[in-house]
Amino acid sequence: MKTIVMKFGGTSLANIDRMRQAAGHIEREFNKGLRVIVIVSAMAGETDRLVNLANKIEGNLDLSERDVLISSGEQASAALLAMILKAKGIEAKSWLGWQLPIKTDYMHGSARILNIDKNDLEDNFNKHEISIVAGFQGISDKNRITTLGRGGSDTSAIAIACAIEADICDIYTDVDGVYTADPRIVPKAQRLEKVSYEEMLEMASLGAKVLQTRSVELGMTSGLSIRVRSTFDDHVINDNINNQKSIGTIICEEDEILEHKIVSGIAYSKDEAKITLTKLNDNPGIAALVFGSLADGGINVDMIVQNISSDGKFTDLTFTVPASDIKRATVMLESLKNSIQYDKLLGSKDIVKVSVIGVGMRSHSGVAALMFKTLAEKGINILAIATSEIKVSVLIDVQHLEIAVKSLHTAYNLDKNS
Amino acid sequence: MKTIVMKFGGTSLANIDRMRQAAGHIEREFNKGLRVIVIVSAMAGETDRLVNLANKIEGNLDLSERDVLISSGEQASAALLAMILKAKGIEAKSWLGWQLPIKTDYMHGSARILNIDKNDLEDNFNKHEISIVAGFQGISDKNRITTLGRGGSDTSAIAIACAIEADICDIYTDVDGVYTADPRIVPKAQRLEKVSYEEMLEMASLGAKVLQTRSVELGMTSGLSIRVRSTFDDHVINDNINNQKSIGTIICEEDEILEHKIVSGIAYSKDEAKITLTKLNDNPGIAALVFGSLADGGINVDMIVQNISSDGKFTDLTFTVPASDIKRATVMLESLKNSIQYDKLLGSKDIVKVSVIGVGMRSHSGVAALMFKTLAEKGINILAIATSEIKVSVLIDVQHLEIAVKSLHTAYNLDKNS
Repeated sequence: MKTIVMKFGGTSLANIDRMRQAAGHIEREFNKGLRVIVIVSAMAGETDRLVNLANKIEGNLDLSERDVLISSGEQASAALLAMILKAKGIEAKSWLGWQLPIKTDYMHGSARILNIDKNDLEDNFNKHEISIVAGFQGISDKNRITTLGRGGSDTSAIAIACAIEADICDIYTDVDGVYTADPRIVPKAQRLEKVSYEEMLEMASLGAKVLQTRSVELGMTSGLSIRVRSTFDDHVINDNINNQKSIGTIICEEDEILEHKIVSGIAYSKDEAKITLTKLNDNPGIAALVFGSLADGGINVDMIVQNISSDGKFTDLTFTVPASDIKRATVMLESLKNSIQYDKLLGSKDIVKVSVIGVGMRSHSGVAALMFKTLAEKGINILAIATSEIKVSVLIDVQHLEIAVKSLHTAYNLDKNS
Repeated sequence: MKTIVMKFGGTSLANIDRMRQAAGHIEREFNKGLRVIVIVSAMAGETDRLVNLANKIEGNLDLSERDVLISSGEQASAALLAMILKAKGIEAKSWLGWQLPIKTDYMHGSARILNIDKNDLEDNFNKHEISIVAGFQGISDKNRITTLGRGGSDTSAIAIACAIEADICDIYTDVDGVYTADPRIVPKAQRLEKVSYEEMLEMASLGAKVLQTRSVELGMTSGLSIRVRSTFDDHVINDNINNQKSIGTIICEEDEILEHKIVSGIAYSKDEAKITLTKLNDNPGIAALVFGSLADGGINVDMIVQNISSDGKFTDLTFTVPASDIKRATVMLESLKNSIQYDKLLGSKDIVKVSVIGVGMRSHSGVAALMFKTLAEKGINILAIATSEIKVSVLIDVQHLEIAVKSLHTAYNLDKNS
């Protein structure tokens, strides 16, 4: 008998009507004779409401108690969904992190799952009862509630799917799959039928907010098929596991994908900020001092460009940090001005990182060259470049975002035939 | 070392500012060197919000899942209050029903506490850490969350206070004590410094919504001193356990109260409805049929009056039921019309039960007579009468409520000297 894990995000559970729609998907899969486990996020807005309450407290926030607070959101949605199913006559029961239990370490707010006890879940299969598991939460060996960090319900779902060796993990959300680009920017973007774990990882970390990066890594390690699909496609009827090609996007091993495009998608991220230090002494050790200090402060530096200035003595150093860290990075570097000896520190958040991603790059050359040529034709200046085996990223001014993504989408033949 | 249990109701925790005020009371008691346990309700409005969500579900509500849902309210307030205390530098930790654990039976929605494990609470005393316990909730031996019913946080507080043999249980609420009458109706009502368990039980069950009846019973069984006091009295400074006479109302044994008034207070309840069956056959067995059917339907009948009609053949039967049950009672009696054989069924919610309460009645006669005389002087018709050892209740038209309570308050010398 096949086993399916179904995960519903906050927008899919935003109110009782939407929960009923989610219950319809669950009922359909259950009626196929599948063994079903459901993982839920908190109702849309609920986690924010709780976090805002906590943020009104002055002084240091105790992260352990914060976990007790925000885990209550998933507790409520799990109970409500179980109630809806039971009212329909379908056997269902809610399970909280401490009840299964889902054991984690005790890094409150960003805990990692150590072990999932499968006994109750398997008992429930035998009782033909659907387990509705509260996502995002676990319990430490000190008997305290932990949470897995934002988007952690994806991780809960995929960890449970791996533990019970599910055939597939369906992530129900408010989009009907992973697209070749953000459809709000590129109307000709196409849904990908399949995408490899590696590509999805790059897309996730580069700003496509469909799945949490950690959950994709977890799925990749176990070779679990993950499907991203919409809760709101009610016209989907004939979608059993064997005939799922046309629904959502499957994230799977590279070799399960028959037709590879060279580039699978164009991603962008606005969560970056640029810092430029001008007229640095072009001495060995200066870069180590700059980046060493930032690393000590826990600030991740992503892209780095160093321009040799005309006189050969001085250099300008440009790099990016997470936008949320720019203030802290600025303070840190200004306090080091005497030892680093630069002229000016220029900071800007008006930049965006645009990336082309595709496992096909491994065997095709010219992908980066086409990117630079396309942007140059549109008069877009590239501020920095970073590459990996399967992606090329450039930093550009945010004003060029739309035209850049659109023209790259066309250049790599990703536009949908209209 | 003395031990105090402090319970805060929903209005005392309605937002972060009010929680800070509650934290101020906790800090004051802790700084006296007392061993402190705190019990919390959900933030005001939160339980209603969750119940309303559940009520949108069509079909039968699963009571076990409903408990998972609504217990999340106390979970959130316990965590927030612990965070506020820790941010002030006071060691505190939240405890949920399953964590201590507080074992209950599995009557979901109205569970009874079977056992409270004191180990963690006593460990926390030794660590000088304040335990913030989520009220209203427990756990069944099936490892499922249970709740104790509306007002159940009072019961949690008093049960825990009894278990750890606390010296006092302070119930912090939005009123500064128990009054001789509802101050909204009787401006001359006075706060009672002390009131006996028996009187408080009558007041609670007759409509003074200060404490849940079950919690008073529990306190009475153990002889625990319970004090009702206001969270919002910030001017209270010098209130240690030995000098508490002037704060709130203490509920205690009758013999701890030195000066007894004959009547301690006037209570009223609007939660009643009246049903009259006219021209019943005055046969033996008819009353048994009427009240037997209602009892089988789980409807509590409170006051009963039977008028012998002039011709001696027929009688009118009047009785009261909870206002929430009048519809059900009416349907039930109409379906029995053939066997009962009455002329008309007259129902009304425009009635109120007014009661005078006092342990002094045991040794004083004339209390009921004064009540009837006072109401007669105001031209108020008495529809039904019920008495117990320490109270006299009458049923009157709701339009007379204010004048009845005010004139009784004066008649029994309860008016405050202004």
